[in-house]
Amino acid sequence: MAKARELELQLHRVEEQLHLIQRIARQLVRTGVLSDSLQRIVTMVSDLMQADSCLLYLLGDDDLMLVAAKDPRPGAIGNVRLRLSEGLTGWVARERRLLAISQEAYNDTRFKFFRDLPEDTFEAFLSAPVIVAGRVIGVINLQHRRPHAHTGDEMEMLTTVGELIGCRVTMARLELGLEQINYAELALRTLPAEQAP
Amino acid sequence: MAKARELELQLHRVEEQLHLIQRIARQLVRTGVLSDSLQRIVTMVSDLMQADSCLLYLLGDDDLMLVAAKDPRPGAIGNVRLRLSEGLTGWVARERRLLAISQEAYNDTRFKFFRDLPEDTFEAFLSAPVIVAGRVIGVINLQHRRPHAHTGDEMEMLTTVGELIGCRVTMARLELGLEQINYAELALRTLPAEQAP
Repeated sequence: MAKARELELQLHRVEEQLHLIQRIARQLVRTGVLSDSLQRIVTMVSDLMQADSCLLYLLGDDDLMLVAAKDPRPGAIGNVRLRLSEGLTGWVARERRLLAISQEAYNDTRFKFFRDLPEDTFEAFLSAPVIVAGRVIGVINLQHRRPHAHTGDEMEMLTTVGELIGCRVTMARLELGLEQINYAELALRTLPAEQAP
Repeated sequence: MAKARELELQLHRVEEQLHLIQRIARQLVRTGVLSDSLQRIVTMVSDLMQADSCLLYLLGDDDLMLVAAKDPRPGAIGNVRLRLSEGLTGWVARERRLLAISQEAYNDTRFKFFRDLPEDTFEAFLSAPVIVAGRVIGVINLQHRRPHAHTGDEMEMLTTVGELIGCRVTMARLELGLEQINYAELALRTLPAEQAP
């Protein structure tokens, strides 16, 4: 019976992952407002992973800008910026690789303190690049306040989410007929007024 | 024990679905040859669903053209065409809806005989639109030679696959810097020589 119970739980988890990806894929074909879509994706992912924070950065002219977040502080969207040379997030963008740190992420030498983000004290950090046509155009970070050993499934899942976000942003760019590739600006120009930076 | 066995099978199926979508998502961010990507997706989907046929049509100037297939007959790719007013496939494109027929698909009044495709005698038919920014740009069909009652999971899965194919095609269009929206031509221009129509 214990085995059946365990299998049930496992089945439930995998089904949730599958449904998350299917819901994100549905966002890809919608002609909706980009910032709404990104915010919805970030919320769904952090809910599924029971994360305490989920931050999405997109590439601006020469830095990464926060364009969506789980429960964002007022004014954070469009204002928090990171150089590509800075922090764990910059490392993921430069290396085009998934990064998983299960505890004491803040002690990693690649870490950068913002001092004004509560996430700076969180233990666990999972981060994946957002990729379009082989190039990094952003980074998505999931954080847990307490230590969290990321499973292979969780890593795989965030990688896929990063790929799908790349598609969603590209679709928006195409839909707007934009040549520009300042992706952060692209996401921010569609923000509702009360969140605009 | 019987319950555990059943759960194991179910878990295995859902995991396979999740991995399929993750493999397709990986195709989205690659700067690869479009026709290779589409062919790979069609093969993966028909393998997972144990289908006897999988045909992908994309919109040309004013008709649907076969651009990828499981085990295509020589010369079929780029030559088999369907008007939007024709057959089950045309119906799916016009209605933008999933269509599932579990048996005797060939007796459906919307069916169109090509006479030269073996698929014309198959019993079960599952078909989903390929959508970009709310518009249909193609149709993907899965067929089983024998009657097959499609599960909700299978329908959901093919819907997602249709959405992801829409993204993959759009990424290729953007990568090639094309204004054109003859999607069939876009897929066919990248065909390896031995398969070119």
